[in-house]
Amino acid sequence: MVDSMIPGEKGPIMAKNIGLRDVVIADTKVSDVDGIKGRIVYRGYTIETLAEHSTYEETAYLLLHGRLPTKAELETFDAALRMERLIPQSLVEMCRKFPKTVPAMNVLQAAIPVLGSYDPELTTDTKDANYRKAIRLIAKIPTAVAAWARTREGQPVIPPRADLSHAANFLYMLTGQVPDAEMAKSFDVCLILHADHHFNASTFTCRVVTSTRAHMYAAVAAAVGALSGSLHGGANEEVMKMLYEIGTLDRTEGWVKEALDRGERIMGVGHAVYRTYDPRARILKVIAAKLAEKTQHGKWFEMTKQLEEVARKEFEARGKARLHPNVDFYSGTVYIEMGIPTDLFTPVFAISRIAGWCAHVVEEKFAEAQPKAVIYRPEATYIGPGPDLEGLPYTPIDRRK
Amino acid sequence: MVDSMIPGEKGPIMAKNIGLRDVVIADTKVSDVDGIKGRIVYRGYTIETLAEHSTYEETAYLLLHGRLPTKAELETFDAALRMERLIPQSLVEMCRKFPKTVPAMNVLQAAIPVLGSYDPELTTDTKDANYRKAIRLIAKIPTAVAAWARTREGQPVIPPRADLSHAANFLYMLTGQVPDAEMAKSFDVCLILHADHHFNASTFTCRVVTSTRAHMYAAVAAAVGALSGSLHGGANEEVMKMLYEIGTLDRTEGWVKEALDRGERIMGVGHAVYRTYDPRARILKVIAAKLAEKTQHGKWFEMTKQLEEVARKEFEARGKARLHPNVDFYSGTVYIEMGIPTDLFTPVFAISRIAGWCAHVVEEKFAEAQPKAVIYRPEATYIGPGPDLEGLPYTPIDRRK
Repeated sequence: MVDSMIPGEKGPIMAKNIGLRDVVIADTKVSDVDGIKGRIVYRGYTIETLAEHSTYEETAYLLLHGRLPTKAELETFDAALRMERLIPQSLVEMCRKFPKTVPAMNVLQAAIPVLGSYDPELTTDTKDANYRKAIRLIAKIPTAVAAWARTREGQPVIPPRADLSHAANFLYMLTGQVPDAEMAKSFDVCLILHADHHFNASTFTCRVVTSTRAHMYAAVAAAVGALSGSLHGGANEEVMKMLYEIGTLDRTEGWVKEALDRGERIMGVGHAVYRTYDPRARILKVIAAKLAEKTQHGKWFEMTKQLEEVARKEFEARGKARLHPNVDFYSGTVYIEMGIPTDLFTPVFAISRIAGWCAHVVEEKFAEAQPKAVIYRPEATYIGPGPDLEGLPYTPIDRRK
Repeated sequence: MVDSMIPGEKGPIMAKNIGLRDVVIADTKVSDVDGIKGRIVYRGYTIETLAEHSTYEETAYLLLHGRLPTKAELETFDAALRMERLIPQSLVEMCRKFPKTVPAMNVLQAAIPVLGSYDPELTTDTKDANYRKAIRLIAKIPTAVAAWARTREGQPVIPPRADLSHAANFLYMLTGQVPDAEMAKSFDVCLILHADHHFNASTFTCRVVTSTRAHMYAAVAAAVGALSGSLHGGANEEVMKMLYEIGTLDRTEGWVKEALDRGERIMGVGHAVYRTYDPRARILKVIAAKLAEKTQHGKWFEMTKQLEEVARKEFEARGKARLHPNVDFYSGTVYIEMGIPTDLFTPVFAISRIAGWCAHVVEEKFAEAQPKAVIYRPEATYIGPGPDLEGLPYTPIDRRK
C-alpha cells in the first residue's frame, strides 16, 4: 500500500510503487509465503510437510492441480514425466555449437523456445494441453541442463534413464553415477523446497507474459531470463563464490569482520520477505550437515555454519538488526556436496521452479476469479523533455551541436 | 489508482490492481503516451515530427541516448549498425532445423539468447557495453527474422547489404528486391512509429527482468515472449485474418453488422490507452493509401477504409461509445502492400520495438533517479486452503480418494 495521491501543480502526481512492494495484484491459490512467521505453503501444505513426506513429482502435481494425487494419478503423472525426458537431437547439437564459456542460463533460455518448437501442442491453449506442456517442460529441462553441462566439457551426453526418479535421473545424467538413496532423496528435497515461492520476479514475469495470451513456453523462457539475474536465482552461486574467496575455515571470522567494516553485505544472509529464519534454509542446513559426513566436501559446510554464527554475533555486537540465512545460504554447500558445479546452481533452481512457473501460467490463464486477469500495463510518470506533449522542435542535423 | 483498503474479517484486504492499470511504478524519460489527446512523444519529440523528419536509425539513437545525434554521432551509430548486421552461421543452421510450421516469434525468442551467446560483452554491464549490445540487437534481429523467413521456405538466406538503410536492407533480405525510395521510406516510418510505446506489457517485462540484474539479451528475449501474445504484438495479424475472412469489399458492411450483432469486437478498433484516434494509425493510413496506388494490394486498403467507416456508423447507430482505429488497424494493410507475409507482422514489430526495449533496459539499469529501482516483487492474496499457514495434514497416498 504505497500508492497515494500527492497534489501537484500539474494535477495529481502519484507516489511510485517501486518494485511493486506490497502492491497486491492478484488472488492466488498456488502458494503463500509468510515472512514474519517464516512459513511457506504450496496449495495449503507447508514445505516442511512436503519435504518430509512427499516427492518432487508429487509436489509438482500438487502445484499444478491444486491437490495431492491419488495413487493412480501419481503413477500416470510420473510415467508421463519419465516418457518425456528425451530432448530433440537438434538441441544437443545447438549445445555443442555454443561457445563453451556461455552462461548456462543463457543456453537454457534459448533451449525453452527450441523445446517449444517441437511441442505438437505449442499453440493449443486448452487447460489440458497446458498441463501436458507443463509435464514436457518439467521432464525435459533437466535433460537440457545436463546436456549442456556435458557438451561444454566435451563429454558425451548421457541419455535419461526411465527407471530412475526425477531427482536421481538428473544427477545420473550430470555425473554418470546413479546416486545412492540418501543423495537422491536429498536432491529431491532441494527440488521440493525451490518449486515455488509466491510472486517472486521470475514467476511475476511468467504471469505478465501469460497475460498477453502468449503460450507457456514463451512465458517460461521469459522467467528463465528473470531467474538468471544475480539478485534472483544467481544468489546461491554468489554465496559459493564468497566461500571460495574466504578459502579456509580459520579465515572465516576475519573475513566477515572485514566485510562488515567495509560496509559490505554477507551473501545469503537477509531476504526481502523474511524477517526470521527462511524455512528452506533450516531444512537445507540439516541436509548439508548429513551430506558433509559422507562426502569430501565437509569443509564448505563447516565454513557456512561458522559464517552464520560469526555473522550473527557480529550483527549483534554492532547493534544491527538480526539477519537470518536465506535459502541461498546452505543450498550452495548442498549442491557442491552433490557434485553439481557452481555455475549450474541457477539452472538447478530452474529445474525445480519450473513446476511453480507452470502452475502460475495455468492459474493466470484459467483462474475462475472475477474480474478476469487482463494484460499487464502499468503507468509511469514521464519526466523527460517536451512541454505538455506538444513536442520539441526538430533541429536539422547540420545545425545540432 | 485502484488501490484501496477494504476492511475485512481477517484485517485489511486490498483491492486488486488488476493488470496494474493506473498503478504508477516508475519515472521515465524514454517516452510518453497521452491517450486522451492522442499524442506519443519519444524523448520529447512527437512521432509526427519524427515520422516527417527523422529516420529509424536516428530515432533509435534518440531513444537510447535521450537526444538527437550530431551528424558525426549519427554517422558512427549508423556505421556500427551496418557493421553488426551479420548473424552467426549456427543461428542460420538452427533456423534450417526448426519444423517449418513453428511460429516465427518462437524462433525469434530462441534467436535472442543465441545471439547473446556470441556477444563478447554479454555479461559486461557498463552503460557503454549496454549501448553496444543495443546496436548489435537492433542490427541483427532483422537479419535473424529474414533468415527464418527464407529458410522455412527452403530459399537461400540473403546476406545483409551494408550499402542499404536499415529499413531498405530488411525488405531486401526478405524479398531479394531492393525496395524503391518510397517503399523504403514508408517502411522506415513504420519502424519509427512502433519503436516505443511507454510501459506496455513487453517493455514492462523487459524492465522486470532487468530489475534482477539480468543482462540485456535475457530481458529482450523475455520481451519477445510478451510481444508474441495475441493481445499484444499479435493484434495486427488478427486484423489481417479478419480481412481475409471478409474476403471482398462488398461483404464488408454485412460482415461488420453481423459481427456486432453477435457481440464480437472488430479487431484493430479500440485501445486500452487511446480515447481518440491512435496517432500511429493516422500516419499509417496515409502510407497505406499511397502504397495502395502503386501495388496490386489496393484491395485491402479499400476494405480497411470501408471497415473503419462502417464500424464508425454502426457504433453510432447502436449508441455505443465511439471506438477509433488503433495502430494495428492499418499496419497490416501496409505490410501486405510491402510484401511482408502475415505471420511476420509480429517479428516486424519486434524489429522496430527493440530500440525502445533497449532504451528501457538502459534506463532501468542506470537511471539516476532516487530511490533506485529494485527487483520487482508484487504481492498477491493467497485464497487457497491451509488455515493460517499452519498447513494441511498430509494424507498418505493409499488413503486418498
